[in-house]
This record gives sequence, C-alpha cells and structure tokens, in this order.
Amino acid sequence: MDEISARRKMLFAGAKFSSVLLANGDAAGGVAANFAYFSGCGVDGAYLILKKNKGVLYTHEMNIRAAKKLSHYPAKLFGKKPFVDVKKAAGRGKVGFSSLEMPAVGYLALRKKAGLKFTDAMGKMFEVRGKKSPAEISKLAVSAKIARKILEDLDPWQCKTEEELACRLKIAALEAGAEISFEPIVATGVNSSMPHHTPTGKKLGDAVLVDFGVKMDGYCSDFTRCYFRRRGMKEQQSYSKCISVFEEILEGLPNCKMGNGVAALSASLLERHGLPKLPHAIGHGIGLEVHEYPHLGKRSVDTLGPGTVLAIEPSAYFSGYGVRFEDMVVCTKMGWKKI
Amino acid sequence: MDEISARRKMLFAGAKFSSVLLANGDAAGGVAANFAYFSGCGVDGAYLILKKNKGVLYTHEMNIRAAKKLSHYPAKLFGKKPFVDVKKAAGRGKVGFSSLEMPAVGYLALRKKAGLKFTDAMGKMFEVRGKKSPAEISKLAVSAKIARKILEDLDPWQCKTEEELACRLKIAALEAGAEISFEPIVATGVNSSMPHHTPTGKKLGDAVLVDFGVKMDGYCSDFTRCYFRRRGMKEQQSYSKCISVFEEILEGLPNCKMGNGVAALSASLLERHGLPKLPHAIGHGIGLEVHEYPHLGKRSVDTLGPGTVLAIEPSAYFSGYGVRFEDMVVCTKMGWKKI
Repeated sequence: MDEISARRKMLFAGAKFSSVLLANGDAAGGVAANFAYFSGCGVDGAYLILKKNKGVLYTHEMNIRAAKKLSHYPAKLFGKKPFVDVKKAAGRGKVGFSSLEMPAVGYLALRKKAGLKFTDAMGKMFEVRGKKSPAEISKLAVSAKIARKILEDLDPWQCKTEEELACRLKIAALEAGAEISFEPIVATGVNSSMPHHTPTGKKLGDAVLVDFGVKMDGYCSDFTRCYFRRRGMKEQQSYSKCISVFEEILEGLPNCKMGNGVAALSASLLERHGLPKLPHAIGHGIGLEVHEYPHLGKRSVDTLGPGTVLAIEPSAYFSGYGVRFEDMVVCTKMGWKKI
Repeated sequence: MDEISARRKMLFAGAKFSSVLLANGDAAGGVAANFAYFSGCGVDGAYLILKKNKGVLYTHEMNIRAAKKLSHYPAKLFGKKPFVDVKKAAGRGKVGFSSLEMPAVGYLALRKKAGLKFTDAMGKMFEVRGKKSPAEISKLAVSAKIARKILEDLDPWQCKTEEELACRLKIAALEAGAEISFEPIVATGVNSSMPHHTPTGKKLGDAVLVDFGVKMDGYCSDFTRCYFRRRGMKEQQSYSKCISVFEEILEGLPNCKMGNGVAALSASLLERHGLPKLPHAIGHGIGLEVHEYPHLGKRSVDTLGPGTVLAIEPSAYFSGYGVRFEDMVVCTKMGWKKI
C-alpha cells in the first residue's frame, strides 16, 4: 500500500468518527501539517475529506489545476454551495477534525452551515504522525544532517550581533537547499537566560546560544549549540553538564515508555548534575512540525517506540545567562540513537 | 496617545464586547498578527486581555522575562489555574476574539473551562488594522522599496530552475535585512497558468512570472513581475495589458468607496482590454499580513479611505501560460499613489 493510503488506514483504525475533514487555509499562512500529511500536497484554500476507504479534495477554481496535479485523492471544484459539497462528502456520522489546526471561524461555519457533527481527532492524527515511516526517518536524517553541518561550521564571531548571526543562519539554510524550520534563536549574555529570546542588535559577547533547525522536503530539524570564545567560562561548565545530561537521557530512553517517563528521567538527571529545574519540557517529538507528538511533559502519556523521533534539549537558565544543548534522536527496532 | 493605546481605543469604539482576548500560540507557528498589533510584541504561549482602558498579558514562566521587557501592557505569570486568571481578567461580559486566528481548540476550552462568552471581533480588528497610521505607512513603504529593488535588479536567467530562482529571492530578502512575506511564486511556461504555483525543478523558459514580497519590521510587501528573454512574445503582450489595467485602476480608485467598487472597476477594465475574467480577487489589503482588510471581492463592502494600503494584481491566465502585474498603492489625504 502506498504511504498516503497507509496513513489514512492508521487514522481510521479503531476511530470514533466515520469521516475526517482537514482544511488548508490561506497560502500566506503556510501549509497545515495534517492536511499535508494526509493529502500528500499543500494546495491552499482547500478541504480534504477522508472516509475509511477513500478521500476527496475540494478547492477553488484558482487552485484546481495544482490540486489535480498534486493531490493523492481526486480533486474537485467547489460547487456554488461549498458547504453542501462538504456535507455530502463527509456524510451524517461524526466528523473527525484537528482542533489545533482549524481556526474557530471554520469550525463554527462548518458546524452551522454544513451541519457537521465534529469530534476532535487531533490526538489521533498526532499519534499517527508520531510514528515515522522509514521514508520519513530518512528525510528527518537529511534535515538533521544539514542543520548539524551548518552549526559545526559556524564561527559566530564572524557576525557582530545576534540579528546578524540569525540572518547568516537563514542564508546558510537556503544555500544548503533547505529553509529554516523556525526563526533561529541567537542569544548572548543575559539574553540567553530567556529560552525563546528573539534576536536583537545586541553585540555578541564571549558566549552565544544558537537554537536552529532546517526544513528539508517538509521535515524539520532542531538543534541548540552554545559557542564560547574563551576557555574556562562558567557558561561552558554548565553547557558541559547539559551535554552529559543529554548523553545520559539517551542511555535511559529504552526504559521510557511514555513522555512522562522522559520527563521524570530528565528531572532526576538535571538535579543530579546540580542544574535547576526547567521552565519548559525536556524536548519534543519532531517531524513535519518542529513540535509534535510525543509531548514530554511530566503528565504526558504519549507513547514512545520504533518510529519515534525526538529533539532533546537539556538546559540551564540562571539570572545572568542560560545554556542549552539540543540534539535529535530516533527509536529504531535496534534501540535509540542520534538521528 | 501612544500608538498601541490608540489601537485599543479604536477597537473598543462602539464595540459590542466589554473585553477582548487574543492568543499567541507556539513560537514555531509564527506570531498571530492581531496579537502583535494590539500588544506591541510577539511573546509566544501568551494571552492578551484588553478592556476599554487597560490590558494585561499572561504567559508562562518560560517567557515572562521577555514579556515584561516587550509587552505594552503589564505582563503576568499564569497562576496554577490559567483559566481562572483569564476569566478574572476578561470579566463577565461579552469577550471579543478573532475567530480566524484562534484555533478551535482554544475557543472550545476557553468557552468551557473559563466560561467565556465569546463574540467574534475579527471584523472589527481587521477594520482597525485596515486604516494604517503614518508610522505604519512608512514601514510599508520601506518594505515595498526593498522588494521593488530586488525585483528590478533581478536577472532570472542567472538561475536555472524555478526553485533556484525562488531560493535566490529568499536570500536577497535576507541580505537586504528583511525576510520574505510569503513563499515566492516562480512560474515558467504552463506553470504560470496556475496563480498559486509552487516552484519546481522546471527549467526557466523564455517567460518567467515572479510573485514576491518581503517583511520588514513586521510589515509586508507583495509584487508580481514577469520577465521575458525575447521581444515580441505573446506573454509580453498580455503582460503589457495587465500593466495598463493597473494604471487605469489606480486612476479610478478615487471613485471606489468599497471593495466591491474596485472589483467592478477591474472587471470592466479587464474586459475592455480583452482579458479573461479573474479566478481570484483583483487585489487585497496588506499590512502585518499579506492578505488583510479590505477584501476586494465583488461582494465586499469593506471601506477604502486615507490609510488604506492595497496590492493590486491584474492578471491573465490562459491554458498555456499566465501573466500578472502586481504593485502596491496607498490612499493619502491627497489621493491614491504607488507606495
């Protein structure tokens, strides 16, 4: 079975819905990940309606030719009453949708005008997407390889400011034939104590934190490296501890069956190394989106197993500075390893 | 009065809501435009709650320092029960929200868990944002200038394929200190007959359509140019007609009070020049987002006036090729002109 059909089968296995509706909005807003994953394309202004054994993609005249060319499922033109088309395709049963991806405006209109009976299928979609196929793992490995190489080759002090370095990274991603998977974080000095710092015109000091990843063929990578211009800085000592924590998490992952297990393991390792508690999760699943299934929060019961790909990011934030080490790992039948 | 406060005043003028709630989600998804516009910042994982005379921004521990530094309104840390905080700040009256920006998951949770009585304020927000201040017009002019220059300097045939040219444009945006406002469209040959074509590895032919804009200081530009390697091509003749239509629309804009007026004017001009009907609107408002108020569809009653900034894009699509000319215009007290 082809990969897109296999995804649909997994989505409907044991499902409490008889159809699924996925929307892809304005092109300027980027492609909705679930839509792309289950349709195999990124046609904008479109609805994908899936049933257990088939699917159909509706779009406007402007995009119908692209849809016919790119969509895995037959592409149809909206009639004069799009809501009638949608209702007909979705049927009378429960309609699964992604509550995270669909804006309230679409949810409300489809419920009212098409009379759809929605049930949230976001969790199920994330779960399906969380188990990466060999083809997806290959793409993630390529994405990881490109980002790692850029970060390895990087000499931050060839740039003067946080903003300049962030720009350099974005150009490097493009030159490598990729794009960025998120706006790079470049933080120096006290700015590095803010995990999601936005790069400023601040001059680079002797320690620089860079959180960067690329998107290649739709798949994201996500890494953090810290750079030090001098030896023996306190920042470097904390950073070394983060790297040790990362290595120990990797060793301990085979014993983690769910996200909460990774959270507990990480919390104890950070404490053992004398590092403060984290203000964010220890990491996250990664794939078509930078942050996806499984969550690694302390209450997460998201499961880990072959096909799981994670970004793990042990960090330490103090009032004057912060450090973080982040790398990507994959679970294969042979165990966990760096991807 | 400062600009952010003035925006709040406009939002509440004659409003049917007593508070407004705006969310900004995961950093990886980009900043929600209304959140940025009304808060003055892009802190992620945050709620902005506005009342007629004040506002407050709630966020998580991870972002509280950035929020305190960047938010126009006081930044507070979510307590143990975030929904209680939100409810307290929003009060018992109707809560305006943006149905386009808020995902269904947030809408449903806030309604259920915080008991909020939502009313859609999306239209009002778009209307406020549609009237650009002098400071915003200056930023849009800078954004337009950068994109125009890049397109003027462009020699498409220094690149081999659509994808390569798209990449070159993205790098040019970054080198100019900006970023792209949307994924560039580069289309050659039959691909140009699809308005939202995604660049492929197709080799550039003798006619190339480029739809490109930058984002600078948060503000977007959006232009389309067609390039011809030879003289006397039929594509060039159609393109010249599009430019004429553009110039005539610009002359006619003073007589257009609403979006539907621009649509009607354009339809008659396209017909007069012997060009086919458009499969998309003749243009759109532009600002923090590429597509915003006013809409220019044939049923649009969105108003035009001083402070309106538009991208106007007369086009012609045939089965074998397509052409489009797009440029940006602003309405000042002195009338309409290119921005």
